[in-house]
Amino acid sequence: MNESLQRPSPETMAVVVAGLQRQFGNRCTLSEATRRQHAHTTTWLENQPPDIVVFPETTEEVQAIVRLCAAHRVPVIPFGSGSSLEGQLNAPLGGVSVDLSGMKKILAVNAEDLDCVVEPGVTRKELNEYLRSYGLFFPIDPGADATLGGMVATRASGTNAVRYGTMKDNVIALDVVTAEGEIVTTARRARKTSAGYDLTRLFVGAEGTLGIVTRITLKLSGLPEAVSAGSCPFPSIRAAADAVIMTIQTGIPVARIELLDEAQVKAVNVYSKLSLPEMPLLLVEFHGTEAGVAEQAARFGEIAAEFSGGPFEWAVKPEDRTRLWQARHDGYWAALGLRPGTRGLSTDTCVPISRLADCIEETKTDIVENGFVAPIVGHVGDGNFHCLLLVDTESEAERKGAEAFLHRLVERAHRMDGTCTGEHGIGQGKQKYLEPELGRPALDAMRAIKAALDPKGIMNPGKIVAHKP
Amino acid sequence: MNESLQRPSPETMAVVVAGLQRQFGNRCTLSEATRRQHAHTTTWLENQPPDIVVFPETTEEVQAIVRLCAAHRVPVIPFGSGSSLEGQLNAPLGGVSVDLSGMKKILAVNAEDLDCVVEPGVTRKELNEYLRSYGLFFPIDPGADATLGGMVATRASGTNAVRYGTMKDNVIALDVVTAEGEIVTTARRARKTSAGYDLTRLFVGAEGTLGIVTRITLKLSGLPEAVSAGSCPFPSIRAAADAVIMTIQTGIPVARIELLDEAQVKAVNVYSKLSLPEMPLLLVEFHGTEAGVAEQAARFGEIAAEFSGGPFEWAVKPEDRTRLWQARHDGYWAALGLRPGTRGLSTDTCVPISRLADCIEETKTDIVENGFVAPIVGHVGDGNFHCLLLVDTESEAERKGAEAFLHRLVERAHRMDGTCTGEHGIGQGKQKYLEPELGRPALDAMRAIKAALDPKGIMNPGKIVAHKP
Repeated sequence: MNESLQRPSPETMAVVVAGLQRQFGNRCTLSEATRRQHAHTTTWLENQPPDIVVFPETTEEVQAIVRLCAAHRVPVIPFGSGSSLEGQLNAPLGGVSVDLSGMKKILAVNAEDLDCVVEPGVTRKELNEYLRSYGLFFPIDPGADATLGGMVATRASGTNAVRYGTMKDNVIALDVVTAEGEIVTTARRARKTSAGYDLTRLFVGAEGTLGIVTRITLKLSGLPEAVSAGSCPFPSIRAAADAVIMTIQTGIPVARIELLDEAQVKAVNVYSKLSLPEMPLLLVEFHGTEAGVAEQAARFGEIAAEFSGGPFEWAVKPEDRTRLWQARHDGYWAALGLRPGTRGLSTDTCVPISRLADCIEETKTDIVENGFVAPIVGHVGDGNFHCLLLVDTESEAERKGAEAFLHRLVERAHRMDGTCTGEHGIGQGKQKYLEPELGRPALDAMRAIKAALDPKGIMNPGKIVAHKP
Repeated sequence: MNESLQRPSPETMAVVVAGLQRQFGNRCTLSEATRRQHAHTTTWLENQPPDIVVFPETTEEVQAIVRLCAAHRVPVIPFGSGSSLEGQLNAPLGGVSVDLSGMKKILAVNAEDLDCVVEPGVTRKELNEYLRSYGLFFPIDPGADATLGGMVATRASGTNAVRYGTMKDNVIALDVVTAEGEIVTTARRARKTSAGYDLTRLFVGAEGTLGIVTRITLKLSGLPEAVSAGSCPFPSIRAAADAVIMTIQTGIPVARIELLDEAQVKAVNVYSKLSLPEMPLLLVEFHGTEAGVAEQAARFGEIAAEFSGGPFEWAVKPEDRTRLWQARHDGYWAALGLRPGTRGLSTDTCVPISRLADCIEETKTDIVENGFVAPIVGHVGDGNFHCLLLVDTESEAERKGAEAFLHRLVERAHRMDGTCTGEHGIGQGKQKYLEPELGRPALDAMRAIKAALDPKGIMNPGKIVAHKP
């Protein structure tokens, strides 16, 4: 926690609340339910609600909020759709939650340039709906229908990243309201630039701790001419992982390559009323020309066969494809059904792909030996996989056991030159892993940047580099 | 210029020089020729030599140099191969040039993970030579045989960027010696991460003003199964540019697509003894499977024909391909031959691709109307093009005219939502364009970051954000 920032006194908060009520009227609320909902967390972290939630509709309104908060040293926590996974929205010192979901204008689609300009409250599904008539799409797909502002903040990726990259690769420019209420424009709309420090990439993944994103220029992709998707079972996790490794190394430009372990397949079958073979399963998708997709699929088929995978089940019709990926995206909810009454915590380690089979296999052994229910899904083309650890958080013993498991998992990833988080971010829960992962000088550099851009420490305090180890 | 940093006194420099001589012996030099060569600039900026050049061989030696300089507030200017284009290597306050060309170990090639770890003095040709037996290559190709450290520093790109991205997309992690002599490790070797601020991307393109890169983890690509390259003349610049725009919009994954105007083709024919048609020319290259490359080439051929391009000349044999690209890369030297005795200054604007034809056409008109000799080459798939302005720098009138041309060119790019630099960087010469391009708050943010990470202002002073407008 920024050592100089304290929870604002009730008197200070009263002044800020009065100021917000004066400007925003019924576009701000003190309702406890809304405040709690805005500190939504899918972790086991306690809900730490803000003091007030405000719903700005313009960049100028965001500036006004930040300036008011800066004048009184009150925390500012940006909120999109509440789908972050590491406690990024919690307000440990109270303060003002800035709900950007009302800022959902699509300001420009530059179809010729394959880019668009949006406000942060637009969700990825809304954007893709809008883009369809242009023959374009925004490829980053973290599963949840997150806002694009939230996706910028967490450096989101998801199922398509193996082909299209992550948010860091698909944001061209940002407008960001700084801790002083100024607007930083990070870049022009050109595809590449060497004009000074890469502020765009600095704000992507900063989890709202350096400013509030109010305008986003995104790269778009043409809707592929042909798409083909399907599922392929494997006799073991290792066989599936080895097939993935070979696919990537061979340079097949697979658009999606997702692993579900047998526990996850079972859960998905029940939840989504499917009848997938209850074995380790790869879901794959290819994008390209008709001929290109056929060639990719044939080559992948050869690799799968080499590792005893198959038979292939193709989802030929678009609606079958949608159903398959919806089932994959509902994996979190499906998994919760495996152990009703528990809470799920999604791990997020990512390792070099040569170590993927080792890392998943060791982790499976750990799960089995310790009696956890923890189905695994993974964006395996990137070396990233999630265990959804289902824990009775009322049981002290279970919680402790789970925390020890998480610790072992991160240590395992570090030992394999990987990271504790491929896409969910650091938030509150993973701060303890940052120094073991990157070392003290990197943390010192991050803290120096935070102090330089947010000297009062009001921007989403308590996240990323707040805690001194 | 950092207001608090002054040129070190002769007494201070004497102490630092003595310290370096003690540690490095004949691995440091005071020779004027070497010092001048280390302030090499292809601009019209005057040569501003450092006081001493030192040749470290290890990260620890770099740390020792920086610590010595920090203790005495002496400037530190990292040097790779001297191929930067914006005065990045000049030493306006004197100080120590740190020549990293001796740090050229390839520390690891992780073929399974498609990555490698290198020291900063390895050049891209050396790396690709080494990688050939692995069936891998590092795709970023700025033309010059730059060091990888230098390419990190300027966020280099070049002919392959349209398909493979720029340095920002191909660096996984860095070790950087900070202004205090600590080593920051920016990331692990996993393909993606959301672990805190993106320090990797912050140091990529920082031109040595935030630290000295001493170790680089790079993404590699598999050597394509099939490559096909060729040249295609067009009746006008606009026709060629329109063909490029359509190619990109259609989603053809072209690996290289380079424009040469007729003046540049003439120069290349003379310099490289080729007989290319002296018309606006596109050089293209496709990478993929045999079938994929054939399909891409056929589709591009249709587009070219639509804009009256052709006939196509294919470079079938690898040696013909090499000859073609070598000729392209020698474009700078070829162009100098158009007006012997002059100096060349390479412009570097980059605009959204929909404005590319407009921008080049307006610029051509400007060149013609003002009687300049300024052949044009461009990485047109990215919207980036260079005019090589050939100027008799002895003539005050010519110099002034050229500066006014540059100013108009950058304004034109800004008007089209582009940038003053697609890949060469800001260095000394382009600092005046940074505020018009990004606005004051972005500059303030860059200055705050510079001050936070280099509080004494010793790292490559006088570059990027040094000058208050």
